[in-house]
Amino acid sequence: MSLLVVGSVAFDAVETPFGKCDKMLGGSASHFSISASFFTDVSIVGVIGGDFTDEDGSIFKEHDINTRDLEKISDGQTFRWRGRYDYDLNVAHTLETQLNVFADFKPKLSDESRKSRLLFLGNIQPDLQREVREQMPNAELVALDTMNLWIEHTRESLLRTIKGVDVVIINDAEARQLTNIPNLIKAAREILTWGPKALIVKRGEYGAALFTGDSYFAIPAYPLDSVFDPTGAGDTFAGGFMGYLSSQEKLDEDAMRRAMIFGSVMASFNVEEFGTDRVRRLTHAEINERFKAFKRMTHFDEIPFERAIQASN
Amino acid sequence: MSLLVVGSVAFDAVETPFGKCDKMLGGSASHFSISASFFTDVSIVGVIGGDFTDEDGSIFKEHDINTRDLEKISDGQTFRWRGRYDYDLNVAHTLETQLNVFADFKPKLSDESRKSRLLFLGNIQPDLQREVREQMPNAELVALDTMNLWIEHTRESLLRTIKGVDVVIINDAEARQLTNIPNLIKAAREILTWGPKALIVKRGEYGAALFTGDSYFAIPAYPLDSVFDPTGAGDTFAGGFMGYLSSQEKLDEDAMRRAMIFGSVMASFNVEEFGTDRVRRLTHAEINERFKAFKRMTHFDEIPFERAIQASN
Repeated sequence: MSLLVVGSVAFDAVETPFGKCDKMLGGSASHFSISASFFTDVSIVGVIGGDFTDEDGSIFKEHDINTRDLEKISDGQTFRWRGRYDYDLNVAHTLETQLNVFADFKPKLSDESRKSRLLFLGNIQPDLQREVREQMPNAELVALDTMNLWIEHTRESLLRTIKGVDVVIINDAEARQLTNIPNLIKAAREILTWGPKALIVKRGEYGAALFTGDSYFAIPAYPLDSVFDPTGAGDTFAGGFMGYLSSQEKLDEDAMRRAMIFGSVMASFNVEEFGTDRVRRLTHAEINERFKAFKRMTHFDEIPFERAIQASN
Repeated sequence: MSLLVVGSVAFDAVETPFGKCDKMLGGSASHFSISASFFTDVSIVGVIGGDFTDEDGSIFKEHDINTRDLEKISDGQTFRWRGRYDYDLNVAHTLETQLNVFADFKPKLSDESRKSRLLFLGNIQPDLQREVREQMPNAELVALDTMNLWIEHTRESLLRTIKGVDVVIINDAEARQLTNIPNLIKAAREILTWGPKALIVKRGEYGAALFTGDSYFAIPAYPLDSVFDPTGAGDTFAGGFMGYLSSQEKLDEDAMRRAMIFGSVMASFNVEEFGTDRVRRLTHAEINERFKAFKRMTHFDEIPFERAIQASN
């Protein structure tokens, strides 16, 4: 029951139609690890600058997240991202990116981290993802996220990295871009021929889908009547998915399906407030309540049509 | 077990990236009634011109669709629509509309039709929809479809018509436009305060959602690796939904949920070929097979997180 994530730890500044926050904890590894910590023991591989205080990192402590491989470069500055959302909250407009210490990030894994059972390669340069993956040949399950930047500029490296992982977790635009196939179902089948045994496609307000072998599983998003700040929703989903899997003995399709629900549950909380604000004070009771809500909102009785006729006569 | 639909019967000409068809049977009442005929006795109220031959109407005969209220105006021409789809098959580009006999359409209901248990008001001018609805005060369940044209130009009349029906079946853009509310969940709740007890939101390749009182039900679309011609998918969905309900004694939420699946099943077949080509040769075995596939692709075990932990220890 241990999970390792490599990714960014950042300070985000976000404007949405509903509010503005100048500085808050962000980055893929932050959102992922906080979400996963509700289900399993999780460790971060990442880098921060001298401006990252104990107070900034208090949330990791509160959630028992292991930061032994979170390198601190005292004379550098932490990665910063500034973005804006308009009413279409599916699209983030990047206003400014300061890579800072993240520009020269070389992930360093301690011996203990290398023994983690599961590994999540957050959205970083695919060469780095592959380096980390290669240091953990015995990981039972490795998942990867990526983005349009890497698909466009480091495509060959990304394809090699994808070949070596078990699960790819991307959004629908990325699946289409990665394959040059407009039909999502065809695109997904194509990606599965490259090596991974599962592909998860995140569809924002429309939910998510899991493709494995010949099987297909799809769920709606939890219905929210207001989405406040979508930043980190994808990583929070991945954290719930991988965190739940990490708590399970069998990593089979049934476990992955439940993990999809837990991932969606975590993401649905994430978007309700700025940054990590909502997720950091979540309870297991709240998580399970929303898990059960997913069952209620997707359940129907399996009565084929002939039987229905008989029943009504 | 009887269902009445009022709507258009048309000749469609369609171009998609995959092919072209100069003349085929189309119109909301056609797609709806053929789909519904797999589940119930269905009658059409509509109008055709002298150019509509017995051959054109043979599909109605084959499917035992009652056409006693399908008025023929011998010196007029049948409604014609010509449209094009690009690779984004969610958007139909109308190239030409010839209303012809449909311009002066006044629905006339025979006494027998008025006794139908269920009524579907296809996408026509809302004054006409209301006239028909008022002739059937005893219908057990009345559903309505509409479109952006009526929302823009006959809004007040449409709102009055919506007030008098039980179920509204529209797509997500229409729900937003109708309410001026960008968030779909809020928009749906708003529409339910106007009178209808249920709202169905069609989301194309993302599936469909059913809002009733405080409950929410959402399903993905059937995963198709090629969509050939989406014309009529919405009406085919509505036909499956209303046709299935018409076969059921109890019109409760459980029946509506199953009806959503049957609607989605029918729509998924509809888009596989031009016009009504695929649906016209469907079998009940094929319908039930795809219904069962929906169960497989949405099922997950309901094991809250604590129990999962115990199970894995």
